Amino acid sequence: MEIIGLKLPLIKEGDDLAELILRALDRSGITLEDDDIVLITEKIVSKSQGRLVDLKTVIPSEEAVALADTTEKDPCIVELILWESREIVLTGPNFIITETVDGFVCANAGIDASNVEEGTVKLLPSDPDRAAEEIRQKIEKTLGKRFGVVISDSFGRPFRTGSVGVAIGASGLTTLWDRRGETDLYGRELENTRVAVADCIASAANLVTGDGSEGIPVAVIKGLKFTGVGQASDLIRPKEEDLFR
Amino acid sequence: MEIIGLKLPLIKEGDDLAELILRALDRSGITLEDDDIVLITEKIVSKSQGRLVDLKTVIPSEEAVALADTTEKDPCIVELILWESREIVLTGPNFIITETVDGFVCANAGIDASNVEEGTVKLLPSDPDRAAEEIRQKIEKTLGKRFGVVISDSFGRPFRTGSVGVAIGASGLTTLWDRRGETDLYGRELENTRVAVADCIASAANLVTGDGSEGIPVAVIKGLKFTGVGQASDLIRPKEEDLFR
Repeated sequence: MEIIGLKLPLIKEGDDLAELILRALDRSGITLEDDDIVLITEKIVSKSQGRLVDLKTVIPSEEAVALADTTEKDPCIVELILWESREIVLTGPNFIITETVDGFVCANAGIDASNVEEGTVKLLPSDPDRAAEEIRQKIEKTLGKRFGVVISDSFGRPFRTGSVGVAIGASGLTTLWDRRGETDLYGRELENTRVAVADCIASAANLVTGDGSEGIPVAVIKGLKFTGVGQASDLIRPKEEDLFR
Repeated sequence: MEIIGLKLPLIKEGDDLAELILRALDRSGITLEDDDIVLITEKIVSKSQGRLVDLKTVIPSEEAVALADTTEKDPCIVELILWESREIVLTGPNFIITETVDGFVCANAGIDASNVEEGTVKLLPSDPDRAAEEIRQKIEKTLGKRFGVVISDSFGRPFRTGSVGVAIGASGLTTLWDRRGETDLYGRELENTRVAVADCIASAANLVTGDGSEGIPVAVIKGLKFTGVGQASDLIRPKEEDLFR
């Protein structure tokens, strides 16, 4: 397995990411093969979708002002967090964890104030599974091969310190490798029977893209055999099966 | 970044893993360079430590019998889970989540019934940070270069389906990349300021070792620059800072 980082120019609203990735591949002399996975950090997907918000344009609701007060956060950012969420999971001093409109449980609804201009924040991409699907289809059509596409973000998590990669969008690969029924070296049933392949890929690429802050927003992963049918939403644990909600 | 899987013979108690890894590298023609990381799945570390338990030798306590009753688990396995844990975090039908003696919050205290003989279970390695340190020192002494060593397991997690790689032991590398104070492309402070590097490495290798069940219990990671000082316990979130405990 090999992971190669890919530089792209700074992305602005309306940019065609598939086109820019194809050009960057050309420039770098990287040839995509069947089963390769193209990983894209969510920052550039958001930017291409124009998901930047000027905080001066946000008018916080009463609910946002109250929550901003208890969490010591900017009321405008809290308004956006509420707007981007379908449920508040947990709040406290300087943190708001919600379930986003796309089902991700994360801090601040994934809203990010780094790598954008002062006074501006960036929302998570809209419908990231669909965004991954569209990019994959464009790249596949041009190159005539079968790829997977993963859109990644970094989330913190309970119990452990530091952030890891998470697949928030995916297309063309098995995101959850279901091994139930398979047996081990001794013919006994496997213990960890479902592997979150797309999250592992996002974490692996995180080591190369450095969370996207190094100007390496794309990575190509070679040597895996996970092309197939799947999306990132397969990795969201339904609330009713979640022991910690 | 490149990840190369390495086959080893079946491991038994007392085996010298450093020695076996050096031999396997030789056989495969892989040369370790400065900064390479050697990842070892916990299964073979446990086996070399003789951490296998014959369930017939386990006498469940009253507490274990009661908990086995409410969780519908084998009382002997529950006894071992309690033995291996310092605190019960959450229990329910067919699950027991505890904090292990080494501080990991996971299901069944990491006790595994796959890849071992019938009637036997495997405990997590004892003091995995120290085990990583010992293996690293032996390999470094032989080859005269600087490496990192990570001992990995797969854990499930709240909010998301499927297991990902987790570093339970580490030596010779920065396990938690603290980027507080660094700035982004626009000179603003980074948002996700601490990256769980060793967990990302464990997840990446998970794609190659397949959770250790494929007879590929070791992987070499090339192309990263994380050698330094750190251990896997740096990635354990202290209970008092954990929002979900």
